[in-house]
Amino acid sequence: MKLSSVGELALLEHIRKSFPAKTKNILTGIGDDAAVIKASDKSLLATTDMMMEGIHFDLKFVTPYQVGYKLVVVNVSDIYAMGGRPAFMLLDMAVNKNEDMKFIDMLFSGIKDALNRYTIYLVGGDVSASMSGTALSATMLGYAKKIIRRSGARAGDRIYVSGCLGDSACGLEMLKRIGRPVPVRYGVSYSGSRGSRKKLKINLPWNTAGPILRRHLLPEARDPGDFMRCATSMIDISDGLLMDLTRLCDESRVGARIYLEKIPISPALTKAASYLGISPVQSALSGGEDYELLFTAPAGEKVKAIYIGDVLKLNRVIVDRAGKEKPFSSEGYSHFHE
Amino acid sequence: MKLSSVGELALLEHIRKSFPAKTKNILTGIGDDAAVIKASDKSLLATTDMMMEGIHFDLKFVTPYQVGYKLVVVNVSDIYAMGGRPAFMLLDMAVNKNEDMKFIDMLFSGIKDALNRYTIYLVGGDVSASMSGTALSATMLGYAKKIIRRSGARAGDRIYVSGCLGDSACGLEMLKRIGRPVPVRYGVSYSGSRGSRKKLKINLPWNTAGPILRRHLLPEARDPGDFMRCATSMIDISDGLLMDLTRLCDESRVGARIYLEKIPISPALTKAASYLGISPVQSALSGGEDYELLFTAPAGEKVKAIYIGDVLKLNRVIVDRAGKEKPFSSEGYSHFHE
Repeated sequence: MKLSSVGELALLEHIRKSFPAKTKNILTGIGDDAAVIKASDKSLLATTDMMMEGIHFDLKFVTPYQVGYKLVVVNVSDIYAMGGRPAFMLLDMAVNKNEDMKFIDMLFSGIKDALNRYTIYLVGGDVSASMSGTALSATMLGYAKKIIRRSGARAGDRIYVSGCLGDSACGLEMLKRIGRPVPVRYGVSYSGSRGSRKKLKINLPWNTAGPILRRHLLPEARDPGDFMRCATSMIDISDGLLMDLTRLCDESRVGARIYLEKIPISPALTKAASYLGISPVQSALSGGEDYELLFTAPAGEKVKAIYIGDVLKLNRVIVDRAGKEKPFSSEGYSHFHE
Repeated sequence: MKLSSVGELALLEHIRKSFPAKTKNILTGIGDDAAVIKASDKSLLATTDMMMEGIHFDLKFVTPYQVGYKLVVVNVSDIYAMGGRPAFMLLDMAVNKNEDMKFIDMLFSGIKDALNRYTIYLVGGDVSASMSGTALSATMLGYAKKIIRRSGARAGDRIYVSGCLGDSACGLEMLKRIGRPVPVRYGVSYSGSRGSRKKLKINLPWNTAGPILRRHLLPEARDPGDFMRCATSMIDISDGLLMDLTRLCDESRVGARIYLEKIPISPALTKAASYLGISPVQSALSGGEDYELLFTAPAGEKVKAIYIGDVLKLNRVIVDRAGKEKPFSSEGYSHFHE
């Protein structure tokens, strides 16, 4: 059934029923002029991210479910990157009136799975028609006792990342070669049986291709819990390590030295990148959407994360495997040869 | 200069500088992963509204300044309608990359004037390209000690509105006849000198046309301060009196009797509607975007607002000038003749 024949009010009622707000902290959920949330003694965190069809996603390559899931995760990641806990979301959605209700249902299914995954309640939103493709905007509210800003890094701190980098960018490249959506969902392993693998048009075992595709299609946000005690600054890696490290350095007014050989690259990335003919190092340094946390902590601290370098006073350099230093910037790094 | 040659980062920096967040309640404003707001002992209010080009606005009839101003006001109105004070806003904006920076500057000028008008701080947002027209989404955060919901009306309460209805719908009709934007701005009276009036292509004095156009182009949200003490339920009139009264009745599970002769209609609307050949009563009952408050209060209370009817147990009726009752619904009212 087309959205135009369902109507705005019926759609709103459908959403309201699909997302019951059952927690004592929500005094009024969806359905009044504004949501009402009980006062908290913690600092309030608020962040927002858009996803525009044709810019952030292309339905030739991703399912509506995956779009919905990712919309939630990118916002959760921003709350985590401040040291906070996500709690409530507001959702704005503009969809072409000729779009099918099935599309909306799949989109909401992804949103719902991600909200449940991170224990977040939908408390409000707006739906509208759009003149062309789908426009999505989510605002995430959360709380924090201790805030970790981008600006807290000090010379002498060590630099850490929470996990492997470059998988997502490689997954995007793989997806472009496959040329159609791969239906991975949260909590359901897409088995990649022989038939499906054949259809994927890539000659890689599923235990290599699967995790790489999943990192791109269904990213997860990293809970900073383990690092909260000691982190001095933090950012999530959404636009690539070098870009986001530059942002952190800019805000902290410091430099950085990172070691190429310490950048964590997954075995799956090494294999998949080799098959696709792309550089795993380039993926790890400049590929976006990994949503790992990048943070700093004093040198003496024991940290359960991957040490990749040190905070300097001024210079921003990357040390290659031969021990040679080269400057880097948000655009990349100069004259670098592996 | 086109947006594509300015770039996303330069635009973000421009926005960050244009909206300094100078209040002790903002611990971190624009420029980190999320905004951080000091804890408050009041309930938190959150609401969001979208404005899509081609759906909510048409740049053939309105200026970018007016679009920006209205985006803020519609969200403020939702916070007011809960009995709250607006405080912080997040803004998502997707604009075609071929759009001129002048467009962005005008849009932000309207947003800024409205934020200043209501003492609201911009604390975060997201900018993106769009494949077609402009997509805007604003999330407003506010606080309230006492919440006025849609659901609190009780049989025997009286029904009030905060001001004249129908002006905005009439303004829209006038604007369509004029066929081009009318450059009214906040705090600046567009004088409508003889030359300008001539250009407007409507034969109405500016003291009639001006206020009507202004109600549509630069709406204001109504502060519920005077009604907070006694209001039992409240909603803002964004989709027309009958539609929003139906919503309030639905949420409160009550009926209503309103009197046609008590619906406040401005002298300017009477004149302008007559000139345009439209019904002022239809405008007042079904025209949207007036952003007046519709609320109920116990019969014994002294209320500084316009009494238009009473809350009933079940029936929803409108009484015409001859004293005859006719049922109404959100779609309008049946068999009604003036």
